[in-house]
Amino acid sequence: MKLWQKETSTNQQVDAFTVGQDREMDLHLAAFDVLGSLAHTQMLESIGLMSAEDFKNVKAELKNIYLQIQKGEFVIEEGVEDVHSQVELLLTKKLGEAGKKIHSGRSRNDQVLVDLKLFFRHQIQEMVHSVKALFDLLTQLAEEHKEKLMPGYTHLQIAMPSSFGLWFGAYAESLIDDLELMLAAYKICNKNPLGSAAGYGSSFPLNRSLTTQLLGFDTLNYNVVYAQMGRGKTERILSQAMSSIAATLNKLAMDACLFMNQNFGFISFPDELTTGSSIMPHKKNPDVWELIRGRSNQLQALPNQIMLLTTNLPSGYHRDMQLQKETLFPAFQNLMACLDMSKLMLENIRIKADILKDSKYQHLFSVEEVNKLVLEGMPFREAYKKVGMDIEAGNFGGDYEIKHSHEGSIGNLELKNVERLMDKVIENFDFASVERAIGRLLA
Amino acid sequence: MKLWQKETSTNQQVDAFTVGQDREMDLHLAAFDVLGSLAHTQMLESIGLMSAEDFKNVKAELKNIYLQIQKGEFVIEEGVEDVHSQVELLLTKKLGEAGKKIHSGRSRNDQVLVDLKLFFRHQIQEMVHSVKALFDLLTQLAEEHKEKLMPGYTHLQIAMPSSFGLWFGAYAESLIDDLELMLAAYKICNKNPLGSAAGYGSSFPLNRSLTTQLLGFDTLNYNVVYAQMGRGKTERILSQAMSSIAATLNKLAMDACLFMNQNFGFISFPDELTTGSSIMPHKKNPDVWELIRGRSNQLQALPNQIMLLTTNLPSGYHRDMQLQKETLFPAFQNLMACLDMSKLMLENIRIKADILKDSKYQHLFSVEEVNKLVLEGMPFREAYKKVGMDIEAGNFGGDYEIKHSHEGSIGNLELKNVERLMDKVIENFDFASVERAIGRLLA
Amino acid sequence: MKLWQKETSTNQQVDAFTVGQDREMDLHLAAFDVLGSLAHTQMLESIGLMSAEDFKNVKAELKNIYLQIQKGEFVIEEGVEDVHSQVELLLTKKLGEAGKKIHSGRSRNDQVLVDLKLFFRHQIQEMVHSVKALFDLLTQLAEEHKEKLMPGYTHLQIAMPSSFGLWFGAYAESLIDDLELMLAAYKICNKNPLGSAAGYGSSFPLNRSLTTQLLGFDTLNYNVVYAQMGRGKTERILSQAMSSIAATLNKLAMDACLFMNQNFGFISFPDELTTGSSIMPHKKNPDVWELIRGRSNQLQALPNQIMLLTTNLPSGYHRDMQLQKETLFPAFQNLMACLDMSKLMLENIRIKADILKDSKYQHLFSVEEVNKLVLEGMPFREAYKKVGMDIEAGNFGGDYEIKHSHEGSIGNLELKNVERLMDKVIENFDFASVERAIGRLLA
Amino acid sequence: MKLWQKETSTNQQVDAFTVGQDREMDLHLAAFDVLGSLAHTQMLESIGLMSAEDFKNVKAELKNIYLQIQKGEFVIEEGVEDVHSQVELLLTKKLGEAGKKIHSGRSRNDQVLVDLKLFFRHQIQEMVHSVKALFDLLTQLAEEHKEKLMPGYTHLQIAMPSSFGLWFGAYAESLIDDLELMLAAYKICNKNPLGSAAGYGSSFPLNRSLTTQLLGFDTLNYNVVYAQMGRGKTERILSQAMSSIAATLNKLAMDACLFMNQNFGFISFPDELTTGSSIMPHKKNPDVWELIRGRSNQLQALPNQIMLLTTNLPSGYHRDMQLQKETLFPAFQNLMACLDMSKLMLENIRIKADILKDSKYQHLFSVEEVNKLVLEGMPFREAYKKVGMDIEAGNFGGDYEIKHSHEGSIGNLELKNVERLMDKVIENFDFASVERAIGRLLA
Repeated sequence: MKLWQKETSTNQQVDAFTVGQDREMDLHLAAFDVLGSLAHTQMLESIGLMSAEDFKNVKAELKNIYLQIQKGEFVIEEGVEDVHSQVELLLTKKLGEAGKKIHSGRSRNDQVLVDLKLFFRHQIQEMVHSVKALFDLLTQLAEEHKEKLMPGYTHLQIAMPSSFGLWFGAYAESLIDDLELMLAAYKICNKNPLGSAAGYGSSFPLNRSLTTQLLGFDTLNYNVVYAQMGRGKTERILSQAMSSIAATLNKLAMDACLFMNQNFGFISFPDELTTGSSIMPHKKNPDVWELIRGRSNQLQALPNQIMLLTTNLPSGYHRDMQLQKETLFPAFQNLMACLDMSKLMLENIRIKADILKDSKYQHLFSVEEVNKLVLEGMPFREAYKKVGMDIEAGNFGGDYEIKHSHEGSIGNLELKNVERLMDKVIENFDFASVERAIGRLLA
Repeated sequence: MKLWQKETSTNQQVDAFTVGQDREMDLHLAAFDVLGSLAHTQMLESIGLMSAEDFKNVKAELKNIYLQIQKGEFVIEEGVEDVHSQVELLLTKKLGEAGKKIHSGRSRNDQVLVDLKLFFRHQIQEMVHSVKALFDLLTQLAEEHKEKLMPGYTHLQIAMPSSFGLWFGAYAESLIDDLELMLAAYKICNKNPLGSAAGYGSSFPLNRSLTTQLLGFDTLNYNVVYAQMGRGKTERILSQAMSSIAATLNKLAMDACLFMNQNFGFISFPDELTTGSSIMPHKKNPDVWELIRGRSNQLQALPNQIMLLTTNLPSGYHRDMQLQKETLFPAFQNLMACLDMSKLMLENIRIKADILKDSKYQHLFSVEEVNKLVLEGMPFREAYKKVGMDIEAGNFGGDYEIKHSHEGSIGNLELKNVERLMDKVIENFDFASVERAIGRLLA
Repeated sequence: MKLWQKETSTNQQVDAFTVGQDREMDLHLAAFDVLGSLAHTQMLESIGLMSAEDFKNVKAELKNIYLQIQKGEFVIEEGVEDVHSQVELLLTKKLGEAGKKIHSGRSRNDQVLVDLKLFFRHQIQEMVHSVKALFDLLTQLAEEHKEKLMPGYTHLQIAMPSSFGLWFGAYAESLIDDLELMLAAYKICNKNPLGSAAGYGSSFPLNRSLTTQLLGFDTLNYNVVYAQMGRGKTERILSQAMSSIAATLNKLAMDACLFMNQNFGFISFPDELTTGSSIMPHKKNPDVWELIRGRSNQLQALPNQIMLLTTNLPSGYHRDMQLQKETLFPAFQNLMACLDMSKLMLENIRIKADILKDSKYQHLFSVEEVNKLVLEGMPFREAYKKVGMDIEAGNFGGDYEIKHSHEGSIGNLELKNVERLMDKVIENFDFASVERAIGRLLA
Repeated sequence: MKLWQKETSTNQQVDAFTVGQDREMDLHLAAFDVLGSLAHTQMLESIGLMSAEDFKNVKAELKNIYLQIQKGEFVIEEGVEDVHSQVELLLTKKLGEAGKKIHSGRSRNDQVLVDLKLFFRHQIQEMVHSVKALFDLLTQLAEEHKEKLMPGYTHLQIAMPSSFGLWFGAYAESLIDDLELMLAAYKICNKNPLGSAAGYGSSFPLNRSLTTQLLGFDTLNYNVVYAQMGRGKTERILSQAMSSIAATLNKLAMDACLFMNQNFGFISFPDELTTGSSIMPHKKNPDVWELIRGRSNQLQALPNQIMLLTTNLPSGYHRDMQLQKETLFPAFQNLMACLDMSKLMLENIRIKADILKDSKYQHLFSVEEVNKLVLEGMPFREAYKKVGMDIEAGNFGGDYEIKHSHEGSIGNLELKNVERLMDKVIENFDFASVERAIGRLLA
């Protein structure tokens, strides 16, 4: 049964092709679909399009369905096209005609739009939570290992002294900028498209400001044509924010694979976090890091997938949009898994002691030497030339003491300030006020 | 002459290949390189690494060079590798040894990093300016044409009544969300990487907070390893923000091409803004819109280009980064041209009157009819079925009066609120305080 | 149980993360894994690394497993890591020690490489089959509708007369070039990587030429390091070939959506192949074409996904490669569905008669008029100017008879020659000789 | 002056925006535009649309222009829109009316289509030439260094013994498969679109088979609508073939950077092929390899750029297509530079002797040991376990003699067969017959 069906029956092949993975994907939206209907019906009641009695019954039943979803008992039945139809079906089974009224003043277009925004808002909250946990671990590791030196590379050539404090701290700070981008995505998600109907509004006297407030949105997508344009755009921007976190993890993973390589040998992990080989008994492979690196590349590919789906299309809804669900939804779980696995690995990292004692790293200190000469009064270019000559002649023996003191250097990681920056970004999300709104709606 | 050159001469082919288009690209950075050097030398003086006398001379000469750049007279001379070398060359020609001292406590790595951030900050200001101008035109057009109805399409099928008010307004509102993303890019650009040297800091007692303040940055990229990671990341995030504006223009352009097509015929433009055909005398082609559509796709491709350049690379500088300049720099001009041309075209748009009088659009009003029946008491599903039957039987004659009143609908565009949202986003950029800082630096 | 496991047990979270969707994906490879093992063991026997007796038993059992797979009864049991382990498990359950010997002289690296090549070869055969069926329909429709004229557009502006014969025929011919690319992918797939072990060969005296012949490969990936590099490269090239077919379908689908739009109204489809709207009773939406358009964009995004996964990685196997399975495998089914649905739709297409009778299309004939004047002796530029003036003055009434006669024009579609080109490309695949080899292997 | 211009003058801004970089790009097409016109006019003469006298004069003048182009003296004059207009201008200046006749039966659409195909065909020939030169060097280096062992890595972990023979040989063989893809691109380019006019053919009795033969094309793009579809498609396929060569170079470059890193230290290059640092006197940076890596990523991004430009567009010409020139044309030079620089670097490579003597590589030989035990009669799994235990207990001392003998292994590189495969691919291009045709045309 399909809501829009008239007399003719639709070809089965067409059904299979058009539904695709959509019913599976829609399960992610179920809870949010109910929230949307709770707000919509309360609004309908407020403008006289639903009786107080009907609303009372519909609300009670929607809350039941919500509970069912929370318990993992909700299913989209065989032959039911999508989550919206399933919720309506459950309501009409219980309430008859009253159940059908939840569709007044809405189209499935704005229904799925609001479901998506609520779902994304929730996913963002989860991602921010996992990012913060990883950030906290990274700053803690930076503090803990701030004395442990390692070589710093440029052009993949041994360059200057670095430290594990810098290394961990860099990835912590990277996550702050990633969350700046996520905050933009959040603000864009946190606007109410409900009431835009099929993208051209409704002749019913809807109160969109009311549903905005009920669902805890920050403001509206005012223009109904723009509300519809949000489909595809919201997904793109959200996936771009996710790609940024992914890029941070990608670099971390590549570093980890390189530093675990025996030619570097800077870090290692317990056996239970590495894997062996079916043919080479001595291998301890960094599969987890390799898969974080690979998954983060899948995540980086997402925005382009969405762009290809949406570019060059005129305004107005197109069915192509449906495919974004199967493109984007699994990415949330994948990004979360990458964040969690990075955390698990780093909790168990072992760092080699005294790495810089190895003679191949002595040239690391050439810049220190140049700077020392400069501080003693030699012009920079001359000092640079002298040290270069010493190295070529094999006469260079560097000063192994590191005295970096400026902001963000080996001796002064500024972790407190970095944490303060992170806190400031996270405050801007204001998840608490959203939670309060949803609490009220379900009360 | 190369700064890092010792005795051996470098193969000419290698030179040509490694320099590539870099000298051309560096011209864009010249003014910002001077600003960076002004801040850096003032800081060097403050920590005793440059004498007051030297600083006075260097500052005067840097201001001269800045003026020269403003007048378009600055060139990177034959045989000089990049903008940093050229500036140093000019200084040493004038000041001798003192000129060389501007390199103390810096690497070309953090020098180009700070140049890029300053340059991007400036480009963002220009882009925001052009976006705002287009936004203003769009809201004005929305107000002006709010009574003019047009068909709204879903699935590219005639769906419901829409209006030119909604159409223009939708693109205005789209630009607000695009600027939310641009704001994130701005915040990420507006952090000071100077002092990170080659990505591992310096043994000089640099005062990075001072250069942060002098250059009007909001805060620091604290961690020096992270400061270096910003290369590639900043570009990616900025290009993502640009891709969002581009996607808005892409859809507008596709709509325009479709609406100019004679089968639609909704809009037209004066002859001097269209082009003809070498073989078909009757053609009035929408080349400008087609090229906006195409250019916006080039812009949407940018983030992926940058990702491919940077993914799977370990931390630390790699020369690959240089190629981002030629990828990203021309994009600023292209996006600006697309914004300006969109504005020029829309300033001259002509809208066909009474589009909906054409009988092929009468079905547009079917939902209005359904809703009217509902407001008269008929259950939605029954009303829907009745109207469907009427249409199939050829008995449908819709009610051509549109009475949409809710927020963001045909009859209630909420342009004031939309403008308020835009103002709020733009305020957050705080370009004024940056301008004040740069003013002081050049004083 | 894992083949490579020694004493320590692996963290469960690590297991879940590293296995991912791999067990599901591996089911696609099962039949091909058995074929690979049949060839490998026959070769082992030939070089004395497996006894004749053992080989006889192993071969019989592998054929049993193959049958089981064909019947859809094969499963990868809970706790078994991948398809290779499952096959070995089944063998050792039946045959004890002998079962374990199939692993001699192989690594899972070359095992999966050969599985993939055999699987891809098979998928290509299926895709070519579906492409050919669509091609045949298109040429048949071109012939059938060659007299039906339609407007041809450039810049989406009415340009010159076209025909449904040209329209169908163009997509037919497009598929020929798509198969040229697929042929390149096929040749690259049709080379034997077996014997490359973990990418560095084996100290066993393997006979790789023998397995090449047994598996029907055209030649070898000789160099064992290159054989390993094929992972990722083969997938990229194959996905590029698939993207080309997808691009053809994408354009066809966009044309179909546009031509079904009521402003064009050139084509229509029976109700059971279109869908309605939950809110607009009059809609007959082209959902199938929209989803073909969308899916073809997903397919076009594939090569870039694979590039991001693989770029900047040094030579040698990396676990990241595993993720290509979940990226690429579902794409085969999606492309096949798009090909089949395109065929289903086109089998039911209805074409509007006398489209060009509509007065808005009269300018189509302006070039005909120009050419007529030229054939009558007027210089081209003058004729062009005269017709242009006539149009501007409203005096243009074209000659509605079309007399195009050159190769590939409205009056001379050259379908026989087009079919000949297609046949020539398909011959080059030589699927028959592969089928004979596989038949012998299973005999 | 524009060919299609009537009375109204076009806005200057529009001019600047629509022409963009097109005039610069068109210079690459000049020689091919003349070839196209030579063939077209000879055909016009053959069907009586141009007098023998006019053709004689036009041909002579076109040959003059061709010579001018060869000498680098051809320019597109200020105010002339494109290469086609410039050639026509030169002709009419010399020949008056006769010059204008070269436009009969053509549109700029098929004119640029044929120019592009001829240009691409030529570029492919150049690229194949450079690929072959690199291939020859690689096989020569493989032979020269076949005895020099190096560690082979999987998961970036030390895995098994490899050799420089294998390493060089792998990249040689990779180029063969890359050329298979290029061959497909060549076949697709080598079909004649001339005569398709604006994409809908012509009412003139053109002889397209004749121009096909004159220009040395293998066959026609028969269907004129398809001929036009080739725009964008040809570019995509060609860029995909280029991306494959780029991916090969990308991996080679990443390997080179890694092996030059001091922790590996396997290879080095003379000082004049590396660069220093402005701050670290001891650096010898692999800038050339980094830029090859980066450029090859730019090249890999190309197909996606073209897809974004073209996807979701209906059939028929769109002005967006113009932008492909500036996207694709510089890529030819970039790919060629990468091939040439790779060759230059490898001609100067220095390989460290006795790499495997370092104790950290002894585990490389564990598989050799396992296999030896197997050949002595121990079951594989037991041998595997024994060697694993020995390693864990520190008792493993491998057998350092390598006796790999199978096809494509360390001891048997099969370079003759690899060269034979390459020769077979290159033969299929048949550049000679194209050159003969062009020779005749210019005779």
